[in-house]
Amino acid sequence: MTEEKKIPYKIYLEESEMPRQWYNVRADMKDKPAPLLNPKTLQPMTFEELQPVFCDELVRQELDDTTAYFDIPQEILDFYKMYRPSPLVRAYCLEKELDTPAKIYYKFEGNNTSGSHKLNSAIAQAYYAKQQGLKGVTTETGAGQWGTALSMACAYLGLDCEVYMVKCSYEQKPFRREVMRTYGANVTPSPSEKTQVGRDILAKYPGTSGSLGCAISEAVEAASVKEGYRYVLGSVLNQVMLHQSIIGLETKAALDKYDIKPDIIIGCAGGGSNLGGLISPFVGEMLRGEADYQLIAVEPKSCPSLTRGKFAYDYCDTGMVCPLAKMYTLGSGFIPSSSHAGGLRYHGMSPTLSKLFDDKYMEARSVEQTSVFAAAQQFAKVEGILPAPESSHAIRVAIDEAMKCKETGEEKTIVFGLTGTGYFDMMSYAKFNDGIMSDYIPSDEDLAKGFASLPGIDL
Amino acid sequence: MTEEKKIPYKIYLEESEMPRQWYNVRADMKDKPAPLLNPKTLQPMTFEELQPVFCDELVRQELDDTTAYFDIPQEILDFYKMYRPSPLVRAYCLEKELDTPAKIYYKFEGNNTSGSHKLNSAIAQAYYAKQQGLKGVTTETGAGQWGTALSMACAYLGLDCEVYMVKCSYEQKPFRREVMRTYGANVTPSPSEKTQVGRDILAKYPGTSGSLGCAISEAVEAASVKEGYRYVLGSVLNQVMLHQSIIGLETKAALDKYDIKPDIIIGCAGGGSNLGGLISPFVGEMLRGEADYQLIAVEPKSCPSLTRGKFAYDYCDTGMVCPLAKMYTLGSGFIPSSSHAGGLRYHGMSPTLSKLFDDKYMEARSVEQTSVFAAAQQFAKVEGILPAPESSHAIRVAIDEAMKCKETGEEKTIVFGLTGTGYFDMMSYAKFNDGIMSDYIPSDEDLAKGFASLPGIDL
Repeated sequence: MTEEKKIPYKIYLEESEMPRQWYNVRADMKDKPAPLLNPKTLQPMTFEELQPVFCDELVRQELDDTTAYFDIPQEILDFYKMYRPSPLVRAYCLEKELDTPAKIYYKFEGNNTSGSHKLNSAIAQAYYAKQQGLKGVTTETGAGQWGTALSMACAYLGLDCEVYMVKCSYEQKPFRREVMRTYGANVTPSPSEKTQVGRDILAKYPGTSGSLGCAISEAVEAASVKEGYRYVLGSVLNQVMLHQSIIGLETKAALDKYDIKPDIIIGCAGGGSNLGGLISPFVGEMLRGEADYQLIAVEPKSCPSLTRGKFAYDYCDTGMVCPLAKMYTLGSGFIPSSSHAGGLRYHGMSPTLSKLFDDKYMEARSVEQTSVFAAAQQFAKVEGILPAPESSHAIRVAIDEAMKCKETGEEKTIVFGLTGTGYFDMMSYAKFNDGIMSDYIPSDEDLAKGFASLPGIDL
Repeated sequence: MTEEKKIPYKIYLEESEMPRQWYNVRADMKDKPAPLLNPKTLQPMTFEELQPVFCDELVRQELDDTTAYFDIPQEILDFYKMYRPSPLVRAYCLEKELDTPAKIYYKFEGNNTSGSHKLNSAIAQAYYAKQQGLKGVTTETGAGQWGTALSMACAYLGLDCEVYMVKCSYEQKPFRREVMRTYGANVTPSPSEKTQVGRDILAKYPGTSGSLGCAISEAVEAASVKEGYRYVLGSVLNQVMLHQSIIGLETKAALDKYDIKPDIIIGCAGGGSNLGGLISPFVGEMLRGEADYQLIAVEPKSCPSLTRGKFAYDYCDTGMVCPLAKMYTLGSGFIPSSSHAGGLRYHGMSPTLSKLFDDKYMEARSVEQTSVFAAAQQFAKVEGILPAPESSHAIRVAIDEAMKCKETGEEKTIVFGLTGTGYFDMMSYAKFNDGIMSDYIPSDEDLAKGFASLPGIDL
């Protein structure tokens, strides 16, 4: 068997083997994802309408669903070289621990200071803003990985960085806040008095601890009122999936180097940035009829947009200032429980991933957080890496699939995305260690409340 | 020039190029480091006397000053493959930022969950304990890197792990504590009521926040009273320097691969584990008369054992239960200020490094912590990695040396050890970010108090 060729614990690509182009999966989709809509006119957003929000090149990338490959600018390639290629790790120790005939690999994106894959798109978005001569960018952050990544990218390029951080994270995750500040970012707890939408939300819900949707609204408004600023977003968007395709392209190159063909590819899914990036080149092969894979999106049972959501046009943010996107969604009015995987609490899902899911290229599973932390701990003990709660959703299902192989005797090759480390999530681990972590599954009534906030547009 | 050969941002060795032996620098020293002494008899410690404290193979390694190379057991090699080889990074971005003709490289040991190089020796010490059929090990930890590393190694091997954590760190660094607990370790704040020495110290100094020397005493006592347990230590000892030689051996292999000859090698020095490991093969060449390098140990001005200490026999711990070591020391009674580099607060220094320093193979510098954090921030912004305060001592001097090159125009090749990440030190960074970090330099009177605690033995 080809897999029996001596495979190292970690497959590193040489610098010369690193991808020099991003791959745009939409180019190979016969049925394209539905366009973003102007929330006022309900017409597809035009280049000119998006221009005040995003910098020009990013608008082009956002709207382009025909160009398959985009050259990665040299300055971004150089930045990538500081922390990429990330290793594709053969989980020999986990396989042994599980006593499974399955072969398990994970693409580890956590070995950079942002602690996750978010840096791949942060540097790209900051670069194009810099190229356009802008002064700075604004963004929101929930768990803090994206804000950290953007702070790092902006520090590197000498760009201003304003981060609206969901208030409960700002208070509960002072470490993340300080990493951003160390990189020179201006961090504001959201909702804040700095924006109209923030003031409105504070008036309506005094004492609220904030939400990602609300922080997005504030960051978009802040960019629109400041000369020389644009808004940037770490997930959901097509441009993000494009930049994150570096994950999948490297994974595929590393697998190809050893003639390995995966059977199952697994990723956690919040807004879809990691999963979309990981599966891009593989789903591209499926779309072109060249290969077939089992692709699995894993989401928390507490925020089940793919497994229990609706495929419909919805607002991307609470303040309803952003374009509408057709996606799997729980409704922008859905209030997720205080799960420990802050990065998976978004009410919607990447429109492109949503379309691929709807077209049956991908399946989805939802898992409970205590089982996720149990998988995280099991993984950490044998593989060394302490994973982020978000990433551990993928570990849970990878272990589940490997255990199925143990039952059936199948030697499947499983690849999963290990998006990041859990170093800033230790208080969540403490709850797990102390046996006081609880699970929350929204009732049908809870979901109905979220669905009631859908705008009811069907084109 | 040979350096002009195309050098990637990160030099990774192939798995097949990884060192398979540790190097014992003492074998090449004509003047050997002075032996450990039994604190009661003042005679050199014998194998039999050390046997109740350390497991047998580690005692052999500790006492062996003639064998140059020790085979690394396969199981340890396999564990190393999970996080090693660590990259040797060419700091292109830092060079550009400094506009220096110097070529700067750093060996980055932070890409594992323990966050530092400590794992290199932790797995070795845990392995030999396991081989001997022991149930578990005890240790102390200050900043927490060593305790985390040992917890990871023990979890991997299925060994009990009892950690005495300096009380102020236990309280101020709950994240570290929880990482250890996630890996199944039993973590006790020190001083504790669990040991006689702990009870004595609490009686004498009620309300004390603990010290590393005190935690060592507790861990040693705990190991001696429990059947099937031994004590392990993350620094100072010869065995640790042996295991940590993997850092230097990999560094040398990576440099050799590209025909790079360093001029200056820099490491931070607390107990000497990282610095000793990094310089081992290089100082070996110096000892054998094959090459010459400028080796620089960097320590905090607040705990200046090499730059202001005495070369004398001293106690390794506060409770005076450990053997005496001849080393550069401030006296076991020296109370270091609450520096943010907890890993560099030890009163003494590796006896082997002390001897090499005394024999002029190495020089030493001391630096103030605000200047260290300034270097850390400058480095983080351009190189991406947020360094540990300890590691940043080496960055400070590397930048200083690179700036000297800028003045003189010399194209020196500088290599420094980047021992770990600062993710668990963000509250220290917060002080720096808020401009409220202070420096502390002990007065001659402060030092005199420490020196007064020296036992006054000169053999």
